Amino acid sequence: MADTAYAGVFPIAPTAFDDRGELDLESQERALDFMIDSGVNGICVLANFSEQFALADDEREFLTPFLIDHVAGCVPVIVTTSHFSSRVAAERSRRAQAAGAAMVMLMPPYHGATIRADETGILDFFRRVAQAIDIPILVQDAPVSGTTLPAALLARMAAEIELVQYFKIEVPFAAQKLRALIALAGDTIKGPFDGEESITLMADLAAGATGTMPSALISDVLRRVVDLWRGGDRGGAETLYERHLPLINHENRQCGLRATKALMKEGGILASEACRHPTTPLDPAARAGLVALAHRLDAMILRWGR
Amino acid sequence: MADTAYAGVFPIAPTAFDDRGELDLESQERALDFMIDSGVNGICVLANFSEQFALADDEREFLTPFLIDHVAGCVPVIVTTSHFSSRVAAERSRRAQAAGAAMVMLMPPYHGATIRADETGILDFFRRVAQAIDIPILVQDAPVSGTTLPAALLARMAAEIELVQYFKIEVPFAAQKLRALIALAGDTIKGPFDGEESITLMADLAAGATGTMPSALISDVLRRVVDLWRGGDRGGAETLYERHLPLINHENRQCGLRATKALMKEGGILASEACRHPTTPLDPAARAGLVALAHRLDAMILRWGR
Repeated sequence: MADTAYAGVFPIAPTAFDDRGELDLESQERALDFMIDSGVNGICVLANFSEQFALADDEREFLTPFLIDHVAGCVPVIVTTSHFSSRVAAERSRRAQAAGAAMVMLMPPYHGATIRADETGILDFFRRVAQAIDIPILVQDAPVSGTTLPAALLARMAAEIELVQYFKIEVPFAAQKLRALIALAGDTIKGPFDGEESITLMADLAAGATGTMPSALISDVLRRVVDLWRGGDRGGAETLYERHLPLINHENRQCGLRATKALMKEGGILASEACRHPTTPLDPAARAGLVALAHRLDAMILRWGR
Repeated sequence: MADTAYAGVFPIAPTAFDDRGELDLESQERALDFMIDSGVNGICVLANFSEQFALADDEREFLTPFLIDHVAGCVPVIVTTSHFSSRVAAERSRRAQAAGAAMVMLMPPYHGATIRADETGILDFFRRVAQAIDIPILVQDAPVSGTTLPAALLARMAAEIELVQYFKIEVPFAAQKLRALIALAGDTIKGPFDGEESITLMADLAAGATGTMPSALISDVLRRVVDLWRGGDRGGAETLYERHLPLINHENRQCGLRATKALMKEGGILASEACRHPTTPLDPAARAGLVALAHRLDAMILRWGR
């Protein structure tokens, strides 16, 4: 891996709404400040955990420079620019670069349950995006796209498209896929990352992952886990991770993107934990369990805003 | 059914692009003129067969008044305003009404392969859209949404939300579902329609469908089929439909939305048959078969623009 590669913990910033579903920019700024103070290596915005699918284009275009300007170079910002159309995805990516994005993240093209591209179309999609920009591309391999991306296809993308340098693998058996991808692609990949709330982080680090893209729930802890691991203290990393695994598990299996919002509300970071309708509020029992686990672990997210 | 109900043939207008994927407004106007001259009862715009999933929001907002203004009241225009977010869908619907839409069409909320709403969320989604407008809503029940909409839920929507008056059923066994829906909902529904290129039209008319939403391929023929049926000449309707069924079948199973664009190009209506990448060009053999079938049937789409 090149020394210039981005590595470490790149959590996803939630998009802050008020109870009526309007953007709440003050809360948004606090969420970013909290993330930076957590010691993140970078921040990813407008991802699925940012409810990108509930935003209108004009909100996305407003938020891109707003978020990057607020982070103000403290850490690199990755902007999600996924769209079904290669043309629209390329234009979004070009604007993200102009706003100061360090990298763009895209899923392969998809729409709904049934509309997909074939391998040629996927390769050409990323090629067209790459032609519009000069910053690295992170390919997001996630179930929401409904698209199977074989490791060999990912390796081919890295080989044929110079800017395709990062991969976030968050499909079942992510570790196996990371291992296969690294074996096939070697140094053409600058960053094999995992995602999915870091629920498979230890196996993925063992497989060679150099970064993780979790939620913003416990970025400080995950930063220490990754630092311990990369410093050679794998036992220490494992112990710290396992102590927090009940919370990550509860987030991943009971709450989804609502976990970070609920705890940011509890901790005074967000004024509202609302997601845009039709995403429903968190089930009260799941929320109570989440808050109890976070208290037990004395999570920074509950303390930072107080 | 109320006398004021929309009924008959409401084909979907393709969105015209040039070979680079830019909007081609001259071709777009010709496509609309051709549809009107075909005797359609109305036109649906910005639907999946219009490649709505490949448009940026600003293109959608430009096209909505552009298309309606060009149709200039000759026939009612139905505007698709689907979005995952209730808020964004309601705003789109409000703007469509302001631009002169006769009706809005929406799928239930969905994103990608995995993000869906439950029944409460779906009902509330349409309720929120209805609160933003005064024109009827057509609920599109299509596989792309990845959402199962039981007939009982559709009937409940019609009963509880006054503006939900039309349904386009284009899922497997559409006729059975139309029959079940009509039995449950009766006069609370003004328009049980089918869709999917009218590939199940005869069974759906027998089940009680009062309208159909095909592509713009053979609107003149489908108009005559529906008129014959509704005038009591079911044998005549069937004979005419069956003569054209090989073309409809070839469209439905071999071509999809590219069929209308290819024949509009052949007939001089569209300057380009390009779909936006990553939608691939039509397979040459499928295209040749399509053109041959259309010639054999002396299709108006090949003659009108010459």
